[in-house]
Amino acid sequence: MDYTRNMRINKSRIENDFNNISKFGGLSNGGVTRLAFSKEDMDSREYLISVMEDLGLTISIDAFGNMRGRRKGQEELSPVAIGSHLDTVPEGGHYDGVVGVISAIEVIRVLNENNVETKRPIEVVNLSVEESSRFGGATLGSKLLSGKIKLKNLNKFVDKEGVSLYQALEDNGFKPDDIESAVLEKGDIYAFIEMHIEQGPVLETENIPVGIVTSIAAPTRFRVKFKGVADHSGNTPMSIRKDALTAASELVLGVERIARDEAGPATVGTVGYLYVKPGAMNVIPGGVELGIDIRDINSEDKKVAVKKVIKLIDDIKKRRPVEIDYEILTDDEPVQLSSMVIKTLEEKAKEIGLSYKIMHSGAGHDAMHMADIANAGMIFVPSKNGISHNIEEFTEMEDICKGTELLLHATISLAQKGE
Amino acid sequence: MDYTRNMRINKSRIENDFNNISKFGGLSNGGVTRLAFSKEDMDSREYLISVMEDLGLTISIDAFGNMRGRRKGQEELSPVAIGSHLDTVPEGGHYDGVVGVISAIEVIRVLNENNVETKRPIEVVNLSVEESSRFGGATLGSKLLSGKIKLKNLNKFVDKEGVSLYQALEDNGFKPDDIESAVLEKGDIYAFIEMHIEQGPVLETENIPVGIVTSIAAPTRFRVKFKGVADHSGNTPMSIRKDALTAASELVLGVERIARDEAGPATVGTVGYLYVKPGAMNVIPGGVELGIDIRDINSEDKKVAVKKVIKLIDDIKKRRPVEIDYEILTDDEPVQLSSMVIKTLEEKAKEIGLSYKIMHSGAGHDAMHMADIANAGMIFVPSKNGISHNIEEFTEMEDICKGTELLLHATISLAQKGE
Repeated sequence: MDYTRNMRINKSRIENDFNNISKFGGLSNGGVTRLAFSKEDMDSREYLISVMEDLGLTISIDAFGNMRGRRKGQEELSPVAIGSHLDTVPEGGHYDGVVGVISAIEVIRVLNENNVETKRPIEVVNLSVEESSRFGGATLGSKLLSGKIKLKNLNKFVDKEGVSLYQALEDNGFKPDDIESAVLEKGDIYAFIEMHIEQGPVLETENIPVGIVTSIAAPTRFRVKFKGVADHSGNTPMSIRKDALTAASELVLGVERIARDEAGPATVGTVGYLYVKPGAMNVIPGGVELGIDIRDINSEDKKVAVKKVIKLIDDIKKRRPVEIDYEILTDDEPVQLSSMVIKTLEEKAKEIGLSYKIMHSGAGHDAMHMADIANAGMIFVPSKNGISHNIEEFTEMEDICKGTELLLHATISLAQKGE
Repeated sequence: MDYTRNMRINKSRIENDFNNISKFGGLSNGGVTRLAFSKEDMDSREYLISVMEDLGLTISIDAFGNMRGRRKGQEELSPVAIGSHLDTVPEGGHYDGVVGVISAIEVIRVLNENNVETKRPIEVVNLSVEESSRFGGATLGSKLLSGKIKLKNLNKFVDKEGVSLYQALEDNGFKPDDIESAVLEKGDIYAFIEMHIEQGPVLETENIPVGIVTSIAAPTRFRVKFKGVADHSGNTPMSIRKDALTAASELVLGVERIARDEAGPATVGTVGYLYVKPGAMNVIPGGVELGIDIRDINSEDKKVAVKKVIKLIDDIKKRRPVEIDYEILTDDEPVQLSSMVIKTLEEKAKEIGLSYKIMHSGAGHDAMHMADIANAGMIFVPSKNGISHNIEEFTEMEDICKGTELLLHATISLAQKGE
C-alpha cells in the first residue's frame, strides 16, 4: 500500500471548513453558542450537507437527525464511520466536536483526490445532541443509535424555555415518532473513530500531539428541584423562612466536598447550572433547579459519590423546611474502547512517525455508546491550557492536521479489513 | 364637618379598579409580572391616566415617569399626596402597591361625589420603579423626588437583558437627561400617606384591620460578581477548579448565618437572585452574579451585618481561586415617619371606630424617601399568611375598604390644615 505514502493532509482546506462552521452561532467575544437543534445548529448541518454533496457522499439523516455521508466501498460490507458532533455548549469554543467532523471531511477529500478505493464504505457522521446544555442529557444521538433511548422518554428532556426534545425534533422536520427505526444492531457499523480535543491539559503539558484513548469515564447526572416559599425579603423573619436557595447552596458545596474528599482520587462533581425563581433582589427564593454531574473512570468510586449525594439531599430535606425532588437523568458506566481499533491507531501512529500517548477520557463522548454497536476508538488532540466548554478553548491547526493524518491512515487500514 | 359622616367607601368601585389593573401582566397561575417600565407597567399607567382624567384631575408626569393627578384645593397651598406604585416583582401578587393607588382613587371619587372641598389640593400618585426586581434598586421614583439619584447613576441600574434605567426611561418617552428637574424641595408636598399591604403576618394574626406605621426598616443592598474559569466538568480535577458557583454558595449560606445568628434580633438577610454563567450541566460555572438584601429597623445591628458580609467576601476571596467584586447599590437608614401624620391617623381611626395597631415596617417603601420632603405616614392592611412578592399574596377587599376609609378621613383632615 505504498500509495498512501504520498497522501497529504491539506491544512488550508481544514481551516476553511473550520472558519465556515465557526460562523454558525459565532459570538463577538470569540466564542460560539450552537445549541442542539437551534437555528445555528441547523445552519451548520446545512453546510455539512453541501460539503458532503460536493464530496459525492450518499447522505442519510435518521429520525433523530443523526447525519451520515457514505463514500462507497468495493464490497458489501459494513462501513467505517468517522466523525463527531457540531452542537456546542452556550458560550463555548469552536473546537469541541467540530474537530472530529472537519477531520473526517478532510479524510474523504484526501481519499478522493488520491482515488483510494477501500473494501468497506467510509462514512462521515455528525451525531445529534452531544452536549447536554440544551436538554440536560448528553450524547443522545449515539445513545439512540445504540438503543438506549425510548420514544416515551423524549418528553423528559426539556430545555429552559420548556421545549421538549420531542418538540425540537418535530420543529426541525425530524420524526420523533420514528426514532426507534434509527436504532442500529451490533455490527451495522464495523468501526467508529472519533477525533476530539482532549479538554484537559495532559497532551499539551507533555508536548505530545495525539492521544489514543482506551477508556471513557461516564457521568451520572441529576436534576434537583427545591421548593420553598417566595416571601418578602424584608418582612419575613429568618426563623420562619423557606428559602430554596440556601438549601440548594448546601447541596452545591456538598457535591464539591464529596467529589474532592469523600469518593475516589479521580472523582469529579459539578453543579453546572442553577436557576432561581422568582429571582429578584427583594424576594426570598421560592424555587431552585440545578444539575449535578458526577464522573469517574472507576465505577465503584462513582457509585460511592452518587450514594453520598443522595444521602446529602435527604439530610438537607430533614434539616430545612423545603421540598427537594431529584431525578437521575443519566447513570452511565465507564466504557472500554475496542482493543482492535486501539492497536490499529498505535500501529499507524508508529508508521507515520507520530508520538502518541495512551490515555483515558474524563469527559463523555459519543464513542462510549458507539462502542456498543461498533469497534470504537478515539484520537485526542491537545487543548491549550486544558480549557474547554469556554471561549478560551483552542487547539493548534497543526495539531489538528497531525490527528487527521492518524485518522486517515487508521481509517484506510480498518476499511481494508474484510469480514 | 358633619358632612363626612355620610361619606361611603364603595367596595365595588375599588374592586373594579383592582380587576382592571390586575389584567396588566396578569398570569394564568393567578400571579402578576408587571416589571418597572415594561409594556405591562406602561399599560397600567395608561389605565391610571384614563381614570384620573375621568375624575377631573390635572395630570403631571415628571421626567422619571412619576405620575401625579391633582384635585384642586381652595387655597394656594402644597398638596396632600396619597398613593403608592403599580410595578410588581416577577410572579408577584396583585396587592403590593396597587392597593395604595386604588384606595387613593376611591378617596377622590368619594370627595367628588360628596362635593367636598378642601383647602389644600389632593393628589393621587403613582411612583416609578418601586420594586428592585428589574433594575436592582428599589423605591427609585421617591428617591429621585427626594434628590438622592443623580443623572450619572442612571446607567448603573441595569436589568438582566442589559437594558439600563436610562435606556428604559428613554424608550418609554420619559426624559432621563432632565430627571434632576423632578427633584422636590421639602414642603413642596405637605403630607404623603401611602396605604400598603403589610407583607407580614402581624395584623392577620392579631385580627386587626389596619396598622399605623411609625418607622421603616431600610435595606442595604449588594451586587456581587464572582469570576472563575468555565472548564469542562469531566476533565478538570477538583484540585485545579476555579468554580464561581461553589464560592457564591458559601456567600449565600454566610448571609443566612450572619442575619440569623451574628447580628441583631430583627436583622434579615437574603440572596434573592443568582445567575450562573455559562449555566450548563457539563461546564464548571465561570461566573456568578447575585444580589444581597440586608434589613433592620436598628441601624447599628444592620451595620454589624453589613460589615460581616464584607469580611466574609474577603475571606472567600482568600480561600478560593476566584475573583469577587461587590458594589453597594443602596445603603439606607431606617426612617421615622411624621408624628403629625401618625397622630392624625390615630385620631381618625378612633373617630370612625376602627381598631388599629401601631407598628413598624420591615419592608422598605416610598414613604421612607417621601419623608424627606413631606410629612409622611403609612397605613397597613393585613396580608393573608403574611405572604407577599408571591402569587399567594392576598388581602380581603373588606380590609382594603377599611383602610381606604381611614385614608379618606385622614386625607381630608390634613388637606384642611392651613400653613
